[in-house]
Amino acid sequence: MQKFTFFNPTQIVFGKGQMQELDALVPKNARVLITYGGGSAKRSGVLDAVKKELMQSNRTVFEFGGIEANPKFPTLMKAVELARMEDVDFLLAVGGGSVMDGTKFIAIAIHAEQFMGKEEELLHFGFSTVPVENVVPLGTVVTLPATGSEMNNGGVISNGTDKLTIFHRDAFPVFSILDPELTYTLPKEQVGNGIVDSFVHVIEQYLTYPQNAPVQDRIAEGLLQTIIEVGPTTLANPTDYDSRESLVWSATLALNGLLSAGVVPDWTSHMIGHELTALHHIAHARSLAVLLPAVMRQRKDQKREKLLQYGERVWKICTGTEDERIELAIQKTEEFFHEVGFTTRLSDYGVSKSDIPAVLENLEKHNMTALSERGDISLDVSRAILEDSL
Amino acid sequence: MQKFTFFNPTQIVFGKGQMQELDALVPKNARVLITYGGGSAKRSGVLDAVKKELMQSNRTVFEFGGIEANPKFPTLMKAVELARMEDVDFLLAVGGGSVMDGTKFIAIAIHAEQFMGKEEELLHFGFSTVPVENVVPLGTVVTLPATGSEMNNGGVISNGTDKLTIFHRDAFPVFSILDPELTYTLPKEQVGNGIVDSFVHVIEQYLTYPQNAPVQDRIAEGLLQTIIEVGPTTLANPTDYDSRESLVWSATLALNGLLSAGVVPDWTSHMIGHELTALHHIAHARSLAVLLPAVMRQRKDQKREKLLQYGERVWKICTGTEDERIELAIQKTEEFFHEVGFTTRLSDYGVSKSDIPAVLENLEKHNMTALSERGDISLDVSRAILEDSL
Repeated sequence: MQKFTFFNPTQIVFGKGQMQELDALVPKNARVLITYGGGSAKRSGVLDAVKKELMQSNRTVFEFGGIEANPKFPTLMKAVELARMEDVDFLLAVGGGSVMDGTKFIAIAIHAEQFMGKEEELLHFGFSTVPVENVVPLGTVVTLPATGSEMNNGGVISNGTDKLTIFHRDAFPVFSILDPELTYTLPKEQVGNGIVDSFVHVIEQYLTYPQNAPVQDRIAEGLLQTIIEVGPTTLANPTDYDSRESLVWSATLALNGLLSAGVVPDWTSHMIGHELTALHHIAHARSLAVLLPAVMRQRKDQKREKLLQYGERVWKICTGTEDERIELAIQKTEEFFHEVGFTTRLSDYGVSKSDIPAVLENLEKHNMTALSERGDISLDVSRAILEDSL
Repeated sequence: MQKFTFFNPTQIVFGKGQMQELDALVPKNARVLITYGGGSAKRSGVLDAVKKELMQSNRTVFEFGGIEANPKFPTLMKAVELARMEDVDFLLAVGGGSVMDGTKFIAIAIHAEQFMGKEEELLHFGFSTVPVENVVPLGTVVTLPATGSEMNNGGVISNGTDKLTIFHRDAFPVFSILDPELTYTLPKEQVGNGIVDSFVHVIEQYLTYPQNAPVQDRIAEGLLQTIIEVGPTTLANPTDYDSRESLVWSATLALNGLLSAGVVPDWTSHMIGHELTALHHIAHARSLAVLLPAVMRQRKDQKREKLLQYGERVWKICTGTEDERIELAIQKTEEFFHEVGFTTRLSDYGVSKSDIPAVLENLEKHNMTALSERGDISLDVSRAILEDSL
């Protein structure tokens, strides 16, 4: 293991009917801005339920809807302006990863005095914490289990053809309400996104090289096995509480810092995937399903020991030569993605070989020229991965 | 799963040389009381290293040594008086579970206005949070991986022949420094205590009945497998960093709330064990090694499905009748305890059948008359467990 700091102060409030805790969780007398997405929170009645809870105590409540998938900087700045004008002192994100990520940006930007008028610069700190002192506290009511944003302090924000990350120590949600029943009305496609996104979050922290982290490895393998078990079941039976609650809890634990504590991760699929989303509007999880198998094949030698361990422990592959077992583990991964409704071919999204140079240009622009756990995925290797995924 | 709240704000600072973070972690200008145990922190030089770090900034530092194993109320009250007299506003526990547990009591008691002069009453809230508002913040430097106290908000305090629990939402350490190298000088017996204590912490949250908690189950199984792997190795080679760091991290994760989130645990071995420690001075972990196999055998029917799962996933027992597989899993558990230097027989501690009534009386006094995940371990069942363990 590497030496590490693990810190995660988010209070998780999990289970059926936990919305009723909201009144106790949000400060009394707060000036609350509820943020949400494209309207499904409204249609499903979740937004009304949230407001009803907040109104139980003396609070002033504002609303900001319309945060899009891959939340956009200009949209979020409108919320920042509203929050500044109305002197908002608590943010409540009601939605999935995009709403939660966007709300973290809003929380950081509201009092970012030294960035006033040039808030775009807040997006240029990458994996470093943004230098802002006064972050507005936020809570979340999660309607889509996928990104783990409900229990971490990071977000991904889009600006033109850039997808950029922000982090802040104070951007952990104070609380996150996770009621699996709130996710029943999600379209199958969105549930599938959650399954694949959380699966790949786990894989990218796990599938590197042996790092003397047996506990982290086994937690990762346990999450992968669980997602493989409950993913297809919850897609087939959206109101089966047992499988849905396991998916929701797995998605949260997949990216709350526990798996990467003490180990070097490999975010290659995510980083290349962000460019595919920015340039070709492929949904985040869909880009990952295309890239991950190609990364596994291209990096077979560097990841050999962990690919064998993954095959054995997650897919119970114990016979055959090493190369056969690795190839079978990759095929099983692809079959799992297919089973939950995903293609693993980039060409299915109309992307062809001639589109690859622009993706590489964007990677270079974002300093993604030395990816992977070893820092040895150059643009040439990224090209090979993209070509392999076509 | 049951609905649950998970909250754990402790910052873990893990790895070689992390003591150097101490100056940044403790507030400047603080009036710090360092608490420690029987002197090993002094002899090993850890205490001096701690003081050196604290002195890097303007702080007033006091010391309170002599907190014993199974920390005693009268001892702790002396520290409370010192802290009150010196207006201490930060506590730093340097030691293992007893020092950390005791320091949590001190933190709670210092400003417990309504309990002034009758602080014993703080020990009578059991698993409920103690009704005190102003808890003094505490940090820890861990020298013995065992109890998980470094990442939870509970403690066990002895008073006469009572071993009593305290909990407070604000009793989580603000930070815990876990440098595996600090544990190298521990006597083998203490390392063994840590191995068995953390193993049983995991088992008692896991070995109940199927609760639709696949993630919690697999994290538990992963911790058990890891402790089984690294326990004997780290005993044989105390300065092998790789196995020691895995033991340290496993012990912390074994009791940080993650395993019991959403499931009903069974603390039977711990609860009966506390009475054995109070009445017969058997070290905490030693009492667990004696009781757990007896609990498993007595509760074979109630725990059948989980015992089979435990046998299969942790010990790879896949053949034989159900009863054979269960018995083998229990034997493997006993053999593991023997391997790390523990007896599994109560009579080896000089306890005989005639001593059992007094243990049962104490259990009754402490309202431990309906133990287990089902609340159906009456005093009669506890008697059977104790007789079986002789």
